[in-house]
Amino acid sequence: MRIDGREANELRPVSITLNPNKYAEGSVLIEFGDTKVLCTASVEERVPPFMKGQGKGWITAEYSMLPRATQVRNQRESAKGKLTGRTMEIQRLIGRALRSVVDLQALGERTITLDCDVLQADGGTRTTSITGAFVALALAVHKLNGANEFAKYPITDFLASVSVGVIGDRTLLDLNYDEDSKAKVDMNVVMTGTGKFVEVQGTGEESPFSREEFNALLASAEAGIASLIAKQRDALGLMGSRIGTARV
Amino acid sequence: MRIDGREANELRPVSITLNPNKYAEGSVLIEFGDTKVLCTASVEERVPPFMKGQGKGWITAEYSMLPRATQVRNQRESAKGKLTGRTMEIQRLIGRALRSVVDLQALGERTITLDCDVLQADGGTRTTSITGAFVALALAVHKLNGANEFAKYPITDFLASVSVGVIGDRTLLDLNYDEDSKAKVDMNVVMTGTGKFVEVQGTGEESPFSREEFNALLASAEAGIASLIAKQRDALGLMGSRIGTARV
Amino acid sequence: MRIDGREANELRPVSITLNPNKYAEGSVLIEFGDTKVLCTASVEERVPPFMKGQGKGWITAEYSMLPRATQVRNQRESAKGKLTGRTMEIQRLIGRALRSVVDLQALGERTITLDCDVLQADGGTRTTSITGAFVALALAVHKLNGANEFAKYPITDFLASVSVGVIGDRTLLDLNYDEDSKAKVDMNVVMTGTGKFVEVQGTGEESPFSREEFNALLASAEAGIASLIAKQRDALGLMGSRIGTARV
Amino acid sequence: MRIDGREANELRPVSITLNPNKYAEGSVLIEFGDTKVLCTASVEERVPPFMKGQGKGWITAEYSMLPRATQVRNQRESAKGKLTGRTMEIQRLIGRALRSVVDLQALGERTITLDCDVLQADGGTRTTSITGAFVALALAVHKLNGANEFAKYPITDFLASVSVGVIGDRTLLDLNYDEDSKAKVDMNVVMTGTGKFVEVQGTGEESPFSREEFNALLASAEAGIASLIAKQRDALGLMGSRIGTARV
Amino acid sequence: MRIDGREANELRPVSITLNPNKYAEGSVLIEFGDTKVLCTASVEERVPPFMKGQGKGWITAEYSMLPRATQVRNQRESAKGKLTGRTMEIQRLIGRALRSVVDLQALGERTITLDCDVLQADGGTRTTSITGAFVALALAVHKLNGANEFAKYPITDFLASVSVGVIGDRTLLDLNYDEDSKAKVDMNVVMTGTGKFVEVQGTGEESPFSREEFNALLASAEAGIASLIAKQRDALGLMGSRIGTARV
Amino acid sequence: MRIDGREANELRPVSITLNPNKYAEGSVLIEFGDTKVLCTASVEERVPPFMKGQGKGWITAEYSMLPRATQVRNQRESAKGKLTGRTMEIQRLIGRALRSVVDLQALGERTITLDCDVLQADGGTRTTSITGAFVALALAVHKLNGANEFAKYPITDFLASVSVGVIGDRTLLDLNYDEDSKAKVDMNVVMTGTGKFVEVQGTGEESPFSREEFNALLASAEAGIASLIAKQRDALGLMGSRIGTARV
Repeated sequence: MRIDGREANELRPVSITLNPNKYAEGSVLIEFGDTKVLCTASVEERVPPFMKGQGKGWITAEYSMLPRATQVRNQRESAKGKLTGRTMEIQRLIGRALRSVVDLQALGERTITLDCDVLQADGGTRTTSITGAFVALALAVHKLNGANEFAKYPITDFLASVSVGVIGDRTLLDLNYDEDSKAKVDMNVVMTGTGKFVEVQGTGEESPFSREEFNALLASAEAGIASLIAKQRDALGLMGSRIGTARV
Repeated sequence: MRIDGREANELRPVSITLNPNKYAEGSVLIEFGDTKVLCTASVEERVPPFMKGQGKGWITAEYSMLPRATQVRNQRESAKGKLTGRTMEIQRLIGRALRSVVDLQALGERTITLDCDVLQADGGTRTTSITGAFVALALAVHKLNGANEFAKYPITDFLASVSVGVIGDRTLLDLNYDEDSKAKVDMNVVMTGTGKFVEVQGTGEESPFSREEFNALLASAEAGIASLIAKQRDALGLMGSRIGTARV
Repeated sequence: MRIDGREANELRPVSITLNPNKYAEGSVLIEFGDTKVLCTASVEERVPPFMKGQGKGWITAEYSMLPRATQVRNQRESAKGKLTGRTMEIQRLIGRALRSVVDLQALGERTITLDCDVLQADGGTRTTSITGAFVALALAVHKLNGANEFAKYPITDFLASVSVGVIGDRTLLDLNYDEDSKAKVDMNVVMTGTGKFVEVQGTGEESPFSREEFNALLASAEAGIASLIAKQRDALGLMGSRIGTARV
Repeated sequence: MRIDGREANELRPVSITLNPNKYAEGSVLIEFGDTKVLCTASVEERVPPFMKGQGKGWITAEYSMLPRATQVRNQRESAKGKLTGRTMEIQRLIGRALRSVVDLQALGERTITLDCDVLQADGGTRTTSITGAFVALALAVHKLNGANEFAKYPITDFLASVSVGVIGDRTLLDLNYDEDSKAKVDMNVVMTGTGKFVEVQGTGEESPFSREEFNALLASAEAGIASLIAKQRDALGLMGSRIGTARV
Repeated sequence: MRIDGREANELRPVSITLNPNKYAEGSVLIEFGDTKVLCTASVEERVPPFMKGQGKGWITAEYSMLPRATQVRNQRESAKGKLTGRTMEIQRLIGRALRSVVDLQALGERTITLDCDVLQADGGTRTTSITGAFVALALAVHKLNGANEFAKYPITDFLASVSVGVIGDRTLLDLNYDEDSKAKVDMNVVMTGTGKFVEVQGTGEESPFSREEFNALLASAEAGIASLIAKQRDALGLMGSRIGTARV
Repeated sequence: MRIDGREANELRPVSITLNPNKYAEGSVLIEFGDTKVLCTASVEERVPPFMKGQGKGWITAEYSMLPRATQVRNQRESAKGKLTGRTMEIQRLIGRALRSVVDLQALGERTITLDCDVLQADGGTRTTSITGAFVALALAVHKLNGANEFAKYPITDFLASVSVGVIGDRTLLDLNYDEDSKAKVDMNVVMTGTGKFVEVQGTGEESPFSREEFNALLASAEAGIASLIAKQRDALGLMGSRIGTARV
């Protein structure tokens, strides 16, 4: 049994609260256990300079932790005057993952920015962010669709993410902070509603891993993500019904 | 009647939720209507270099708005690489205000950092932050006192803040964003539980104001702050009972 | 008697030297005792992006201290790579104060930048800056008017500023550095030639203050500012004669 | 047949030149086809602050591209004043990968910094960098060992890296720039001399991928890395003979 | 005849005002015609890290122009967040030049920082700065000597600087801004009281120059500097009497 | 005899390798003994904002040292977030020197950027850079000319640079690092193929120098540069034949 009583393949309790923010086109407060992330989707009717004139839209993400999201207070990146490598890596990952299920042509020349602000961090902030940002994005696209029926629905599939790791010789799903700091192998997986891989990032800094361990990790992630996507479907209800209807 | 149906001297609904954050020594989610600020108090057992060796503590504050706290998304200061003048001005104000009711000698050589992160902004974010940060500070000092009974209680008085302004020829209390953008005079007032002024910042950029208008604004703020301090007392209950018992 | 022999309500000797700089459209060397500030007004025939296309002008200010303006040398902000919060706060204040007496519509689409560079600092640098910058602005507008008669004169009133404070139980006007560092209450007041308040910034970090103390401070500031405005009128002579003739 | 005449599972010509730099403790010029990276290993007899007093060493890496390493000149990061997210991500990856085959305890309290400067970039700069940096590291450790026989040899295994991708429906090894920009799935794999995985980073931004595709990519990478490690062994000759002799 | 009526070998009127700043250990307002520079010397009883423990002192300089020192207002370097190359180049030159006439051993472990702030710029700001900074340095060392008689006087010689240039086919001394912008060759020369060269920086970007032109430029500079040093001697009077008495 | 066996007036072995980079319009690997600099010329069909609409081109340069180009590793300027004064000074010098032999009108509205990246530094990196950058520039202009015959050839003369210095009482040519750190006078000279001076930068921080020493230094530099230009001519062969044919 794990430190919090979970089975090896069990997710932490997941909660998805829709639209906690009154201004954003879509917003979600998502919780994986004690990890809490506020995700907002902001729509702007223009694209960044490198996308101009292509008739396509853009999806981008930013990620940040509040200074006391963690056990020990961290200095703000705004006070340091620059983003850490970790932050840049995570926000690039979130943006890339979300773009994999958006038809940018169908979206039209607009940008949707997903802001993922971690209110409390207990491991898995990047996977929680991706899973929540997808729902915020879905809300924003649903709202856009209301005003302006899309010929082709721009979201081509569901998308969620989870972490898996190896502690001792056990493969564990959805690590909390304590587990994460003990894991010798750590992997983040992003998958679609149709069971395809979007991102696999596995690292064995403490201890390189074998093909067998790798396969076990992927299997655990696959099951966890299927379960997360079911929760996204529930949360979105009818608002998610057109997702993937016009798959590219 | 005001846009949201309030009387001229009426505060917006105020909500104070204690300890929403599991790591911080004290934390508060405070709401003045649709303005929502998460305030955390973090205790560190050291002081900044300029305070070293004086046997005294330090209180400081940081302030930030989430990018989509506002109607239109704002660029993150961490992405810009620097704090705006507005942010610096506000966080300096919060720190200064809180220090006015703390006996730094009694606190001992430790720093308490108050982080005020605005989750949603509908006017009055700096006054909401000061009012909430005081409660988070009180929670942290109460916790420190539990572990380590202070000879002299370091918090010498209650402290709260409110905005007042003039729209047309009316003096209004606790402006929301719409009112704030129309006000020709705008004033932020910070006062103690014993009715003394800590900060008065009045500005009539649009229209200079007379001594009479000034007096009316102060009177309105005075009443509003008394009401806010009553809410702080309620929220803290017994945890606030030693505040001001050893006034300096 | 005060440390430099002044009465409680007495200003330091004030000196206003017109046009010490041969390039600027207006410039002033202003001295409040040993505090010396060089103020230049620079006119540009364009406005910042956020003001474009409104047919209105803009007034902005920058403030800086030479590194050895003070008893101990300060590091340059250019070497640090960023402005301190204090500098930002002061330059925002100067700009806001000056805009309160300028009809931006009457000014037309141009920007006037007031640079206030403190050559020597002995307390009251922000109030000295505002008082001097107003005169530099008046010189620049007078010169613009010579070339290009304004239908409506853009400066609507005189403007000056002074500090007041409480030391022990005395209310003192125009604090020098020694007094400033001992004051338990510190207030900066900006007023117009017609006796209206533009900015009141009072802070009692060391010791919160009562309504009575507040009133005494305002009264002292009011008299001091009237006297400063008389000196501005003298210095400008006929060049100030159209100020406020077309009050908005 | 591929654009440059290679088979799907064929590496580009690989060249490893030892010690092109006369100052560094170890250095390598490595070429994967037209991708050329200069890798230097610098030894310092101290560790970063967060490692102090643990009796352990540290391995870190920095990565940069010369401005004209690419078809179109890129602005220098030193001129921009900050590192891009891509650079940070890559240098974090290189450092993490190398640490996986170093026994930091055995290394003792010293830091080895691997600088990977891309002189010419034709795809695969991060995998080329890892493969070359490992050899530079091995040279530096060999030199340290000469002066100061290690009780336990600090390098526990060989390490190399290669990219694999999917273009159309073919799995290709070691993509050049043209191939990389057309690939719908892109994966970088780092493995040890004993065939374990250290890092797997697969991304299907353009097109999510199936478990079967994933397996094919891993198999191709496995073979490519085995071949790269053979070339490293050749290049190091006797200098590599103690690597992995005291496996942890 | 030149634009301002001078002969080819004639300096502009030079004015040296001692101690305009009440805080600095030495200060000078120096004017070469309409170029006005405020130079302050600040003494600190410590040396920078790279000089520690050598029993020697350090001399360094900083240079800046007020934004409206020039015909068109320049953006502040503090607002830009970084020093321009021109500023760095000039302040490195000033520091290097002054160090050439200081016996750092004799000075003892202290730093003297020369701040050269250009109040008005009409060409030759770097040469004016060097010439003025030398006098400010001499005043500070004289003051140190009063408190603490130096065994060996730390200033080993006088030092001044002037610009020379070629316009058309004429060699001109001490160029003002108009001349400077027309010159095809531009040279700055720093020399000692005993007629030795400390710095020669000649540039013919517009038009490379011959050995003969070079010799004529040096001759003109030599005469100009001798005349400037005479003015420094006059200004310092007895305070300069020990300079160079213990030449190294 | 010098430390490396050279005569006082002898250059180190010079090697010029053409086009080591497959992307740049011109590139050179230049070696002065153990100093190795990679110079690339990049052509862009636009000019910087301050040159727009004048029908003229622009030549600019950037300079950087790899972190382990030196005996002790240096921190990267990209990691520090800013360029050092030394770097700015050198790259301004390189750009200015090259522009002196280019007819910007004849070049047309395009920019050529010379990147000088020091792979290994053993003294004289700036003079090596100028000498190599000239050849890279010549290659790029030759290539432009092939595509688009210039009415007037834009390069008006050859250009090279060398350092000279005084150690003890000897004048030495082309100092290596050991010599450079012992020199009491240090001078960098840039000259054209027709024997004119473009830049002379002499500094006697350690010891001011006489007119005689100056003359000896210039004579030594003159001979060294003539020899370097002969090597440039050899390396360019026919590609250099039009240089200076249409002298301005």
